[in-house]
Amino acid sequence: MSVLVVGSIAYDSVTTPHGSREDAVGGSAVYFAHAASFFAPVSVVAVVGEDFAADNLDAMRKRGVDISGVAKAKGKTFRWAGEYHPSMNARATLDTQLNVFADFAPKLSPQHSACPYLFLANIAPELQLDVLRQMDARPKLVALDSMNFWIDSSPDALREVVAQVDVLFLEEAELRDFAQERNIVRAAKRVQAMGPATVVAKRGEYGALMFHEGDMFSAPAYPLERVMDPTGAGDAFAAGFVGCLAADGDLSPDAFRRAAMLGSVMGSFCVQDFSIDRLTALNPGDIDARYRAFTDLAAFPQLPSGATLAAGPAGQGSPA
Amino acid sequence: MSVLVVGSIAYDSVTTPHGSREDAVGGSAVYFAHAASFFAPVSVVAVVGEDFAADNLDAMRKRGVDISGVAKAKGKTFRWAGEYHPSMNARATLDTQLNVFADFAPKLSPQHSACPYLFLANIAPELQLDVLRQMDARPKLVALDSMNFWIDSSPDALREVVAQVDVLFLEEAELRDFAQERNIVRAAKRVQAMGPATVVAKRGEYGALMFHEGDMFSAPAYPLERVMDPTGAGDAFAAGFVGCLAADGDLSPDAFRRAAMLGSVMGSFCVQDFSIDRLTALNPGDIDARYRAFTDLAAFPQLPSGATLAAGPAGQGSPA
Repeated sequence: MSVLVVGSIAYDSVTTPHGSREDAVGGSAVYFAHAASFFAPVSVVAVVGEDFAADNLDAMRKRGVDISGVAKAKGKTFRWAGEYHPSMNARATLDTQLNVFADFAPKLSPQHSACPYLFLANIAPELQLDVLRQMDARPKLVALDSMNFWIDSSPDALREVVAQVDVLFLEEAELRDFAQERNIVRAAKRVQAMGPATVVAKRGEYGALMFHEGDMFSAPAYPLERVMDPTGAGDAFAAGFVGCLAADGDLSPDAFRRAAMLGSVMGSFCVQDFSIDRLTALNPGDIDARYRAFTDLAAFPQLPSGATLAAGPAGQGSPA
Repeated sequence: MSVLVVGSIAYDSVTTPHGSREDAVGGSAVYFAHAASFFAPVSVVAVVGEDFAADNLDAMRKRGVDISGVAKAKGKTFRWAGEYHPSMNARATLDTQLNVFADFAPKLSPQHSACPYLFLANIAPELQLDVLRQMDARPKLVALDSMNFWIDSSPDALREVVAQVDVLFLEEAELRDFAQERNIVRAAKRVQAMGPATVVAKRGEYGALMFHEGDMFSAPAYPLERVMDPTGAGDAFAAGFVGCLAADGDLSPDAFRRAAMLGSVMGSFCVQDFSIDRLTALNPGDIDARYRAFTDLAAFPQLPSGATLAAGPAGQGSPA
């Protein structure tokens, strides 16, 4: 079944400890579309400026992505510049030029408003609400990503849209802020009570913690010898997650665990190169192999009976 | 087979967001002995002052711990005071009074120097070297814990003792510092090349990453709704790890993975109350149940064949 993503298309200038890249294609919709295209048909609703290169659209088209919802507007494409700290766990935004993205008002075609799976990427909650209103019928599954900027600037709209989605992705620290609760288990439960049956705390190099109805699942991240550029990892994670659920329509607890693992798999590829370079070079065999590598990374044996002693041997002696 | 631990016995005064405790029994040897006693016979070599309460020794004796190596010296017991940050991921040391610990010079009895499993808890690397020299024969397994203080103040002695051990436990940030390498995979490999076949990066609430020979294993932590006091979690982790390996003498890769999981299990209990209170209230059934809870937390299905698309459907349309 097909997935609709509504998000950003951007040119990013990124500096990491391993190098830098100027005006490379990025944006949540681009990362998501490339990564999700390995699992399900994907349609993109987004906006680009007059300067957006045909090559960048061709790359999505080659992956079978429906780009009929990508509007071209007068002006320049959204630009973002950032620099990652040496640890790669934090980054500083150096420049943001909204350009055509400032007036982005997603308009869904009849085909798009009938999509059974919807990913509302990290844009203004008011726009996310507007997209939901344009859907013909309630999609089979709606997933949403957001960030601190919206938690701080549009808390009411964010709560309103979160109440209507099935899956919420947030970075762990943002989830704590959104829930106003330091403990991650209690924070996730509080947010589940607002609406979403599934809450995913993204933990970067530590993986993800998924709360699905009453189920709790810890998905590891793959320890990589070289992380080139973390940009887009969250969108690639969402793509593996939602794409995999859309692939066969299975929404069982096991399917959600598999989805979280495929999220980790796609995130792990995304960070191995700048921009979407690793994602465009991927083939399905790579995904299978990485999933198996994750299985090896996380497998452990059962506890044999009698592994613990009821009590140790009688104590001997006393302090000298 | 029996485990010898050489480490500290202390009175800790700890403040966390959930409360505080004055002069509660602590120290690496105490946490380790209590937690390891569920898996194997444990002997402790340590020093206490004249003020050390008989009750605190009785509690170890009740767990079958051999305390004949606990020397009583003139003066007061080692005291430490600390306060945890609201996130619980960092702490400030408010006071350290070495007292009798300042002159600690471990002397092993013939019985102790024949122990087949040895845990060198976090003490001066020179003392750790001295203990190793006193062992009759090379133990079947030697594990070591250390910290930034020794990495900074005694790097040469630390490298010398690390070269002679089988298992090194360090907090992730300390492992990076010790290896002088930011990437955790490369850091662990660099330290393995110094000697230890097994290097464990402790990640607190994110679990642990174990590098065992060519094997890499990610052990989750258990997400708890209330973490009362993180003190001693690292020693409880080491206790589950080493105690379990000593229990049946199995040193296969699977046994090491089980060891890492029992480390996480014992660490998860330790933090649920102040001092050793949760550990002393434990019974073997609790350990089995928590291990099963970890299995549920981390289990995920295999990837079905055909989960990925070779390519999506033909792209449609172009930007408006």
